[in-house]
This record gives sequence, C-alpha cells and structure tokens, in this order.
Amino acid sequence: MRNPLSEVVMNMQPSGIRKFFDIVSEMPDAISLGVGEPDFDTPWHIRDAGIYSLEKGRTFYTSNSGLKELRIEICNYLERRFNLKYEPLKQTLITVGGSEAIDLAIRAMVNPGDEVIIPMPSYVSYLPCVQLAYGKPVIIDLKEENQFRLTAKELEDAITEKTKILILPFPNNPTGAIMEKDDLEAIAKVCIEKDIIVVSDEIYSELTYKEDHVSIASIPGMIERTIVINGFSKAFAMTGWRLGYAAGPEEIIKQMTKIHQFAIMCAPTTAQYAAVEALKNGDEDVAEMRESYNQRRRFLLSTFKEMGIECFEPYGAFYMFPNIKKFGLTSEEFATQLLKAQKVAVVPGTAFGDCGEGFLRISYAYSLDNLKEAMGRIKLFIDSLN
Amino acid sequence: MRNPLSEVVMNMQPSGIRKFFDIVSEMPDAISLGVGEPDFDTPWHIRDAGIYSLEKGRTFYTSNSGLKELRIEICNYLERRFNLKYEPLKQTLITVGGSEAIDLAIRAMVNPGDEVIIPMPSYVSYLPCVQLAYGKPVIIDLKEENQFRLTAKELEDAITEKTKILILPFPNNPTGAIMEKDDLEAIAKVCIEKDIIVVSDEIYSELTYKEDHVSIASIPGMIERTIVINGFSKAFAMTGWRLGYAAGPEEIIKQMTKIHQFAIMCAPTTAQYAAVEALKNGDEDVAEMRESYNQRRRFLLSTFKEMGIECFEPYGAFYMFPNIKKFGLTSEEFATQLLKAQKVAVVPGTAFGDCGEGFLRISYAYSLDNLKEAMGRIKLFIDSLN
Repeated sequence: MRNPLSEVVMNMQPSGIRKFFDIVSEMPDAISLGVGEPDFDTPWHIRDAGIYSLEKGRTFYTSNSGLKELRIEICNYLERRFNLKYEPLKQTLITVGGSEAIDLAIRAMVNPGDEVIIPMPSYVSYLPCVQLAYGKPVIIDLKEENQFRLTAKELEDAITEKTKILILPFPNNPTGAIMEKDDLEAIAKVCIEKDIIVVSDEIYSELTYKEDHVSIASIPGMIERTIVINGFSKAFAMTGWRLGYAAGPEEIIKQMTKIHQFAIMCAPTTAQYAAVEALKNGDEDVAEMRESYNQRRRFLLSTFKEMGIECFEPYGAFYMFPNIKKFGLTSEEFATQLLKAQKVAVVPGTAFGDCGEGFLRISYAYSLDNLKEAMGRIKLFIDSLN
Repeated sequence: MRNPLSEVVMNMQPSGIRKFFDIVSEMPDAISLGVGEPDFDTPWHIRDAGIYSLEKGRTFYTSNSGLKELRIEICNYLERRFNLKYEPLKQTLITVGGSEAIDLAIRAMVNPGDEVIIPMPSYVSYLPCVQLAYGKPVIIDLKEENQFRLTAKELEDAITEKTKILILPFPNNPTGAIMEKDDLEAIAKVCIEKDIIVVSDEIYSELTYKEDHVSIASIPGMIERTIVINGFSKAFAMTGWRLGYAAGPEEIIKQMTKIHQFAIMCAPTTAQYAAVEALKNGDEDVAEMRESYNQRRRFLLSTFKEMGIECFEPYGAFYMFPNIKKFGLTSEEFATQLLKAQKVAVVPGTAFGDCGEGFLRISYAYSLDNLKEAMGRIKLFIDSLN
C-alpha cells in the first residue's frame, strides 16, 4: 500500500512538551511544573453563564464569525484595556482558542516560499503552522542579555525580500518576557518601513506584573498591518472551553473567516455565551488570579536566587526561564535527571527552539504549596549535582 | 501596503449557502428550509452531563486526542452500529466537529498536486480544504438517474496516476442519497485495485430511512485505507457543541493528531463529557429523532409528487433534492424568486457544485407545521410560474 502521508506533515516534529509529559503521566507521585495552563477552575459566574445557555437549549451553531454580542464585548474590552478600536462585525472572528486563530492567520496570508519570522524560544505551534502552509520559517534567537525581548536590530537583520510576516509572541511562553512600549515602537518602525504584517499573539496580555500590556497594534501605523490574537484560556482560566479570537484589518479577517467557515464552522456555542459573561463581569477574577500568579512569581524568583540559579526577572505570563548552563548538563539531561531523581517535571528549554538550550521552563500555574515542595526537591537535586 | 493575502485563499469561493442566507436574515417573516442543522435541542440528559462537568470544574484541557473514556465509547459505538473495530487510544482522534476532521485528514495526506476525487453535489468544505492543501480537486458529477450514488465506472474514469484520495460523502448532503452495501463493494474494489485512500464522511450515518448505514470501512480490505469521519452534530442534535471524530489507520491518525495538537490543541472539554453520555444513553433519542425526520421526509415526498415536481426518493440525511428544470429557471433564479414572492428560503443546488444546477436543496430539519406552511407557499409560487 502507498504511503498515505504528506511530506510536510511527516517532516514536522511533534511537540517537545508532550514528549516529556508522556513520561510524567506514568509517574503518580511526580510534581509537575510543566503545564502551560492556569490551575484555577473557571470562575463560577462564568461557568454559570455556560450552564444557563445549556438549560435554555442554546445548543445550535452560531454564525461562522461568532455571536454578535460576544464580538461587541470583545471590541469593548480591547478598547478599554489596550486602546484598540475595531468594528465588531467586520474586524473580529471568534475561534477555537488562540491556536486556531494563529493557524488561520498563517493559512490566510502565507504563499509557498514566503518567509515568516519567528522569534524563539516561543510557543510550539508557530513553526509547524508555517511549515504546513509551505512558508519558510526564519528563526530569530532571542537573547537572555536582552531579557528575551526582540530588538529592532535583530528583526532588521532577519528581513529579506521574501519576508512577509513577523510573529510577535509577547508576553512570551516560555520565557515570561514582555515587550514594553519603547521596544514595540522600535519594532513597529521596522515593520512599517519594510512593509511587514505582524501576527501578535497576546494570549497572555492579562498576565503582566510590571505595567499593563501594550499591544503593538496600538502603535500608530500598526493597526492596519497587525492581526491581534487573544482568547479566554489564560486570562479567565478557560482552557477547556476552547475560545479565542482574532482582530485585524477587515480584508484579512474576511479571508480567515472563509477558512474557518469551511474547516471549523463556528466556535463552541456554550463557550461563547460564557465568554460574554467573562468580559462583562470578569475583571475582578482576572485581577485576583494575576495577584496569585505574581506572589508565586516573586516566590520562585527569590528562591532561585537563594539557590544561586541565575534567572532573569520575567514580567509576563506564568513562566520562569532559569539558566542552568553552569551545571554542565543539557536542558534535556537536566530535566530528565531531575524527574528521575526528585520526581519534579519541568520542560527543557529546547522544546521551544534550539536557542532554549541551557534553560528550563518552569510554570508557576501551581499553588504556592506545590511550588514550595517542588523547589525543595529541586534544591536537593542541585545539591546532588554540586 | 502589500497585499497580505495568500493566492490560494483569495481564489477560494465563499460558501454559496451563506451567501443566500445573508439575504434571508434581513427578512423577518421568511420561512427557511435552508439550514443543515437539526431543529431539536440537544436531549436533556446529554446537556445535563455537560452541565454536571461544568459544576464539577472540569474546565481544563483534555489530552490532545480527547478523553480516553470518550474514545473508548466511540469505539464501542462504531463496533455496535457499523461493525468497525478500532483501538481507542491509537486509531481515534476527537475533533472540533466533523469539519475539523475532514480538514485534518486532507492536510495530513495531500501533497501539492495530488489529486483528490470529490463526488458532487456534496458538502461545501471538501473542495476548499483540498485547495488549501494545494491538492488538485477532481470532480465527479453524480447523476440523478443513479439516484446520486457514486458508481464504480464513474470512479474508475476519474482516477489518474496522481489520484491519492477519494472523498466519499454518504449519506449525502445535499441530495439525501445513500450508498448501500453492493454500491460500496464495487467502489471498494476499485479503491483497493488502484490503491486509493478513502475519506468517508459519515456524519449523517444515523439518519437513514431504508436500511442501516453501511460504512465502506466495514468492507474487507478497506479499514486499512479508510478514514471514517463522524460526529455528534447530526445524530444527537449537538451542532453547537462542535464535536466530531476521525477513526482510521494508526499512522494517519497519528499525523492528524500532530496537526490538531498545534492548530487546535483539543476539542471542547464540556462537549466531550456530554458526548460520553450521548453514546452511553442516547440511542433512544436518536431513534425518536430519526422517526420524526422520516415522517417529514414522507410528507415532503408525497407533497412534491402532488405538485408534479420530480424528486428522487432520498434515503438519508434530512434533505430533499427536487428537480426544477422544467420551470426553465436556474436554481439560483428559482430560489431567489421563491424567496421574493413567497418568502420561503431554500438553497440552490449549485451551492454544492455546478452539477447541482436544476435542483434545490430542501432541508426537512423543521417541524411538520413549518414544512406544511412552506410547501403551501411553494405551491402558490409554482402555480404562478405555470
């Protein structure tokens, strides 16, 4: 029988995160600091809105683009929080999580051979989505000395005649890096000069611990060349609901909607009703969760310092990205040995790009008790190495 | 500013169904026979299982492939209903409706230039999904004289050296045609001889009115070359939950899962819990709904006969596909004038392929009262034409 598979798919690497967690799932007393998912249940009033919609029999398709009410609330929210102005019925699309929105943006824009710049370390989906669209991923290795921010110089050096898109993943998974207004202005200048479209993945925009998140789309000249990706998973602890959105220029959203209509139809209806409630009455929940994450972040930061492990201060998302180069182990070796010796699961930095070598991704989407126990074990492991 | 869009996306036609319904939504007293969606709310016990999962705080990601319990129930169901044997954890993938599963199957298998055979009229997604993957769609025009079944001869004539995949969309949307065991055996023979992979979209498999649905995967030699697509939308009236699945050879499911993991992450969690309940205790609901559809089907069939409108007897799904050629109008003209004159919305057959010219898709996923009123209006319209 013939090989049924496409070449591009066979050449795609599976996620390095998952590979690691297949081991963990076999180990019942392991502590995981590995998962990129809030540890909070979805706030009750949001779940209740979902329940109410089910009780009322709202079990039908919504329009392909999503509930009108939700699209209006999203635009209110984006303006209130990030000073972004969009027309709800022309410039937004409700998707199955931020993930689908990323994939759609790439499918709608990339011609075979187009270059797409991906700063790394970053979320595992960008590279394979570009490959699936027959685009050419161009990697920028972000540097610890720049606190893993993208610099205008790095961007300029990566641009060629074939560059079409920059993926801008801040606040960043896995490093926790953010980009502040000055940083973004420098990037925007290059994008405008070189006519680059930006896919700005702002799924962690509610989780910043220094100042409020700034969207690159809010910089003059950028809203017309930026697709903003966001969603409910991280801010509202709604991962399982699978709800995200894209906002951007009408012509791009229109084409993304066309693909979405054929490949997905519409986002889950129950989740859409719950999301309306989240946006209307969820600000306090977000603030409370943010405060919890920030406590944990400070705890980890000071504990790593005490242990003598170098770690730049991350101001976003819920990840630390400590540097473990001084132990003379690769990230994979360190993570594997830590899991074996002390049953603590962390993700090797290399799961997010080759330039993650020498780093670990530590998620603090876990209770303080959990984090304390895990850090105790990590200390024992490090002592055994020294 | 540069054109941000990809060529393949710009050349894709938007769905002809939607185009038509944009007009309808502006017309408050119109009766629609247009939508491809059950008119029933999801049965209460299924909604209740979803509600219970929300109350219990099951708001997190499931594994990429879906809940283990659901995958086991799906395999039990496929064996019980269609005599198909799959390994739950190796040969199934839970998706966002059947739609995502179709898109994934094509993305996982099609190399640029590979030919994919699509019998038409059929569901609007196959063609654009193949185009997006840079495959070459090869259309077979199904014939009314064959009751819109696919014949082995038609298939053989369409196969070239580049043919890789046959999409087999039965029970069919929009024609209501089914393929019986004999028909499928003839198709299977060709597929095995010519080494063709089948993507069998069986989303309407519970809605047949002659004999039980037969899956081509149950024909000897076919399970290893067939991806079965199915889901909960049509059988269990669960459209808004967005839940479907694919079952097939491990190597193909594995690659589909890889794309799914990056582009979607996982199917909605609440829907997955509800679907477990649907499969465990939903058989009676399905039987009741099927009986309702069948009543309506018989009503429409006899009413069309009384009106002198030719309509082959459809044994599947919830659509009639009457032939309106004798009125000397195109499908689009007929549908547009009917809507204007009598405010009844139907879909022109051409929305499902050029060979749908001269036909209308009439959905009977509407109450008998609704159908009676609509058919009365259609009669008035036809009288005005004669």
